[in-house]
Amino acid sequence: MQPSQDPLVTEVGVFVAFEGGEGSGKSTQSRLLAQWLESSGHSVVLTREPGGTAVGTMLRSILLDPATGDLSPRTEALIYAADKAEHVDTMILPALADGAVVITDRYVDSTLAYQGAGRALHVAELEPLARWATADLRPHLTVVLDIDPRVGLGRAGEPDRIEGEPVEFHDRVRHHFLELAAADPAHYVVLAADEDPETIHHRVRAAVTPWLGQAREVAS
Amino acid sequence: MQPSQDPLVTEVGVFVAFEGGEGSGKSTQSRLLAQWLESSGHSVVLTREPGGTAVGTMLRSILLDPATGDLSPRTEALIYAADKAEHVDTMILPALADGAVVITDRYVDSTLAYQGAGRALHVAELEPLARWATADLRPHLTVVLDIDPRVGLGRAGEPDRIEGEPVEFHDRVRHHFLELAAADPAHYVVLAADEDPETIHHRVRAAVTPWLGQAREVAS
Repeated sequence: MQPSQDPLVTEVGVFVAFEGGEGSGKSTQSRLLAQWLESSGHSVVLTREPGGTAVGTMLRSILLDPATGDLSPRTEALIYAADKAEHVDTMILPALADGAVVITDRYVDSTLAYQGAGRALHVAELEPLARWATADLRPHLTVVLDIDPRVGLGRAGEPDRIEGEPVEFHDRVRHHFLELAAADPAHYVVLAADEDPETIHHRVRAAVTPWLGQAREVAS
Repeated sequence: MQPSQDPLVTEVGVFVAFEGGEGSGKSTQSRLLAQWLESSGHSVVLTREPGGTAVGTMLRSILLDPATGDLSPRTEALIYAADKAEHVDTMILPALADGAVVITDRYVDSTLAYQGAGRALHVAELEPLARWATADLRPHLTVVLDIDPRVGLGRAGEPDRIEGEPVEFHDRVRHHFLELAAADPAHYVVLAADEDPETIHHRVRAAVTPWLGQAREVAS
């Protein structure tokens, strides 16, 4: 259960994570990036957490359904970790080995920010769990889409179990993302998420481009 | 994610786990013990892993359904751990605090024996995970119902995803249970499971009786 010796950063394939609060446009930006990369000849896998795999979809429904009610904090942390393990082992690592660009809508940072912000468990407990679950695989680049939760929550629709938390919770989540980015500038970019989507997309392209030398191009 | 400093053994309530291979009669013996304790005026909670809680039932269906197919070993370990966390936090600990006798059909030892026997993950990784999930709560008494898997598997019906493993797997499971029992004789009893159920039940009663001073009797 110890985290592995060193973080795992692959030398083939490119692993890009989008992180940010509710309504920050992660899904839109993930899709725009995938479309651009595909149109420029790359092999792309677009996925998300929780729920990127078949088992993940079942786990996601447990986590996000308001009918689930209160889960023990450890239960919640372990279900998120199970989703991650399946995601990394059966989808992300094989795709990277094949030279693909893997784009995920949320990854480990969301676990740390959301569950750590809840304060029921300390990040010091959560992080080794999430790292073990993911074989300590790190994104080459994490794009943090930063937005004031008072704006972001207004954009989201009917609140799910997480979105229904008070705004102070979402403020803590936001600051946690910014702290993670500040600690590792070589692998993070923070973009203001209140610009128009096309402007943000061009900034995402600029941030991702330096990594594309590791990606395989699809034979035409 | 470190295991807590010391194992947690409660001073009120009595926590009894039944462990053993397929077809060893754990369900029957759990039920007979619960009936006997209830008839002698104790407050009893009879439960099982995986699946003792509402969330656990959902997780159990993912784990045992042959349609799930192969899970990543880490995924499987984490789903079992999530089931345990919910079980301990929302059911077992509150019942013990209330002075009940809690009887569970499988607990941490099954995780160690089955997942460790699969050898995909080492027990050294699995045990801290299971201990963290359960707040390191230990049974006062674990009853190991010991049976040759060649006999036990013949008693079980249509095999689920675990029962369908080869007999050598089940031999390793059996020996793991026996090793755990040998290492902590104050909290384990091993009973031959090929006797008739009533004989075994009387041996279970004899093993449980010394612990009942911690149990609350139901007001009559």
